[in-house]
Amino acid sequence: MTSSRATTPLHQLDAWQAASLLARRELQAVDLVRACLDRIAEREPQLQAFVQLGADAALATARELDAGPVRGLLHGLPFGVKDLFDTCDLPTAYGSPIYAGQQPLADAAAVALCREAGAVLLGKTVTTELANMFPGVTRNPHHTEHTPGGSSSGSAAAVADAMLPLALGTQTAGSLIRPAAFCGVVGYKPSHNRVPRAGVKSLSETLDTVGGFARSVRDVALLGAVLTGDTRLADPAAFAQTAAPRIGFCRTPEWAQADEDTQQAWAQAEAALAGHGAPLALPPELAGLVAVQKEVQAFETARSLSDERLRHRDQLSAPLQALIAAGLAIAGDTHAHNLRVTAQARHQAQALFGSHDVLLAPSSIGEAPAGLDGTGDPLFCRTWTLLGLPCVHLPFARGRRGLPVGLQLVGAPGDDHRLLAAAHWVHARLSW
Amino acid sequence: MTSSRATTPLHQLDAWQAASLLARRELQAVDLVRACLDRIAEREPQLQAFVQLGADAALATARELDAGPVRGLLHGLPFGVKDLFDTCDLPTAYGSPIYAGQQPLADAAAVALCREAGAVLLGKTVTTELANMFPGVTRNPHHTEHTPGGSSSGSAAAVADAMLPLALGTQTAGSLIRPAAFCGVVGYKPSHNRVPRAGVKSLSETLDTVGGFARSVRDVALLGAVLTGDTRLADPAAFAQTAAPRIGFCRTPEWAQADEDTQQAWAQAEAALAGHGAPLALPPELAGLVAVQKEVQAFETARSLSDERLRHRDQLSAPLQALIAAGLAIAGDTHAHNLRVTAQARHQAQALFGSHDVLLAPSSIGEAPAGLDGTGDPLFCRTWTLLGLPCVHLPFARGRRGLPVGLQLVGAPGDDHRLLAAAHWVHARLSW
Repeated sequence: MTSSRATTPLHQLDAWQAASLLARRELQAVDLVRACLDRIAEREPQLQAFVQLGADAALATARELDAGPVRGLLHGLPFGVKDLFDTCDLPTAYGSPIYAGQQPLADAAAVALCREAGAVLLGKTVTTELANMFPGVTRNPHHTEHTPGGSSSGSAAAVADAMLPLALGTQTAGSLIRPAAFCGVVGYKPSHNRVPRAGVKSLSETLDTVGGFARSVRDVALLGAVLTGDTRLADPAAFAQTAAPRIGFCRTPEWAQADEDTQQAWAQAEAALAGHGAPLALPPELAGLVAVQKEVQAFETARSLSDERLRHRDQLSAPLQALIAAGLAIAGDTHAHNLRVTAQARHQAQALFGSHDVLLAPSSIGEAPAGLDGTGDPLFCRTWTLLGLPCVHLPFARGRRGLPVGLQLVGAPGDDHRLLAAAHWVHARLSW
Repeated sequence: MTSSRATTPLHQLDAWQAASLLARRELQAVDLVRACLDRIAEREPQLQAFVQLGADAALATARELDAGPVRGLLHGLPFGVKDLFDTCDLPTAYGSPIYAGQQPLADAAAVALCREAGAVLLGKTVTTELANMFPGVTRNPHHTEHTPGGSSSGSAAAVADAMLPLALGTQTAGSLIRPAAFCGVVGYKPSHNRVPRAGVKSLSETLDTVGGFARSVRDVALLGAVLTGDTRLADPAAFAQTAAPRIGFCRTPEWAQADEDTQQAWAQAEAALAGHGAPLALPPELAGLVAVQKEVQAFETARSLSDERLRHRDQLSAPLQALIAAGLAIAGDTHAHNLRVTAQARHQAQALFGSHDVLLAPSSIGEAPAGLDGTGDPLFCRTWTLLGLPCVHLPFARGRRGLPVGLQLVGAPGDDHRLLAAAHWVHARLSW
């Protein structure tokens, strides 16, 4: 640790490394916060990852932490928060002009839990409009003419660019895993309903999931332990294990849409992990869920955004108006049917983990697309989100344009701790 | 209809009757609103069902509705909203001094959907503290020294006292069915996740459910159709059906805790419904869910209220502080286990509806308890809430103290339309 500190600029320290130094008082939180703020000052003009910075408050909090006892797992670690989460001391606009300047009275529960564990809020990160597809201003740190993905655009970009080690995001279709893939960071979508959504703008009860970003599996596990309250997620012994997980190589029924870069990463992973698993084809009853996820999302989002549609229609983008119109065209009995299909599929998905500990699957069609007028396609995330399964994106390759590519591991329902330990093991065996 | 209008004071009209008259323009919304406001003015000093009234805005809205086209299923119907739902034009305090005077920017989705359908918001109704057990000020309209139940206290009392025909509430343990039972109105808890929770203070992702109150099954069905977007719920043909539902008489494993009044109501219902069903004992895997529901609720509520705990502890009641402490003492892996048990139980519960269309079950231990220092026990609602099944409370009897008693019908997951049609059929066969 000391050697890595000697050679690594502070803002590039991984959360796990920094947390260890901070807990031993070999690193001051105020120095780490200042290093991150310096990095942000240098890079923010190009990347535009933040909608609000709270520099003074962050430095004050860091000084308090340095002067007091170690608070928890995230003591002294700077973090960013997608502007879909309410914060009591920074405005929260949900990526929409409708909410410009809104100052919530309370922190979202996930934000409060991070602060309780000692994390220092640096700022609010860019989200797409109401966490839907209309992009924000953030650029991909690996190529500023490419999208960082969405909807958790700013959080993924900020972590990728070493502006901060940890950031919160949400996923309703692919809004954690896809930007993680496009920006080349680790993204973690916990099992559905393991993290409180209180104070997060609600789009879909059935799908919305709070999660986060970091630059290593151990780092998102620290965040995950705090968010879920499950200390097993950050157990050092689990990360020291040498037992190989049994991996189901699941190309998914959408495999034909994966481009050459994702196929290349897949081949690389299959070679590196040979002998640790076997191909796994989704059974027919789980093979048509992309369409179900789209309908559930459209129906629930359209109705969740009823106030915005009825009182602020002119402040909604044309694409979001179109999605809402499509959602309102879906009949209520179709939604009831889709919820039954979802419940049945979640039950059936347990059988995937009889002979496998985790599944390996594509995260995205390929590299981050060029252009800033979209955020890419969540295709390869829709099924796992509908199933409510925990997912971790692992960055480990580069595509033809030099942008990051990777794959995701998918765990059994509620088995987040085993998924994260397996992801750590797998990630160590994939070259970056 | 005309005859019932001639003999029934306007404020006592059921929603279905009033909606029919309003749609035919035989009744003006402004007259109905004024009649309800008069009733409120007369009764509110004793009952204290409201935290905020919006009389002027309601009258203005009613005049607009009278001058324009028929908006939807709830055209011109006054409604009340539990103060756990955000409203864009009335303050929203969630029953807590922490949020006193808070003015949200947006309507909760459920409120917006009701307004879109033509309903007229009369006011915000009393909730217990953050929809937990610390009571509000509302009194039971049948006996002002007894609790109206909670947490949707004001909504149930206002509908029972004919202050308005419809009101919104929520249930996490028994907060719709219990106050409906204690106040003698119909309460409807939809299937989990069929109604958007956006803009409702979040306590438990796994349990929170938006629903409502009315004075007849057809009336809550109107509300339910708007909330779920499923027009089958308010299909007049379904309510005209003469086919008897097959009823499973399910005393539940907690039956020994039902008092003499609930047992008497049960005997009365069994006699009235003889020949239409058979006793049904919950299988062992569904017989221990009360304890699971309690743990899920405590764990999730404690974490959802993180901001309140960390920044406003002194403004939380002692009972709520104790519940939060109990929730924080539950380990994260226990919660993961409980979520798995819940998913498994929801799957197994489908089998209950193989040979039965609906289940009949107790709603409460008995009449509303005396005293205003508590809101009664949600014991008989916990299992159904955990299972996410739709429930309708039917009032039809009186207990030893003359307070209302009734039973609930429970439907198959997502089968809200069949449940409501069956409830209408059953209710017609139970004498009030």
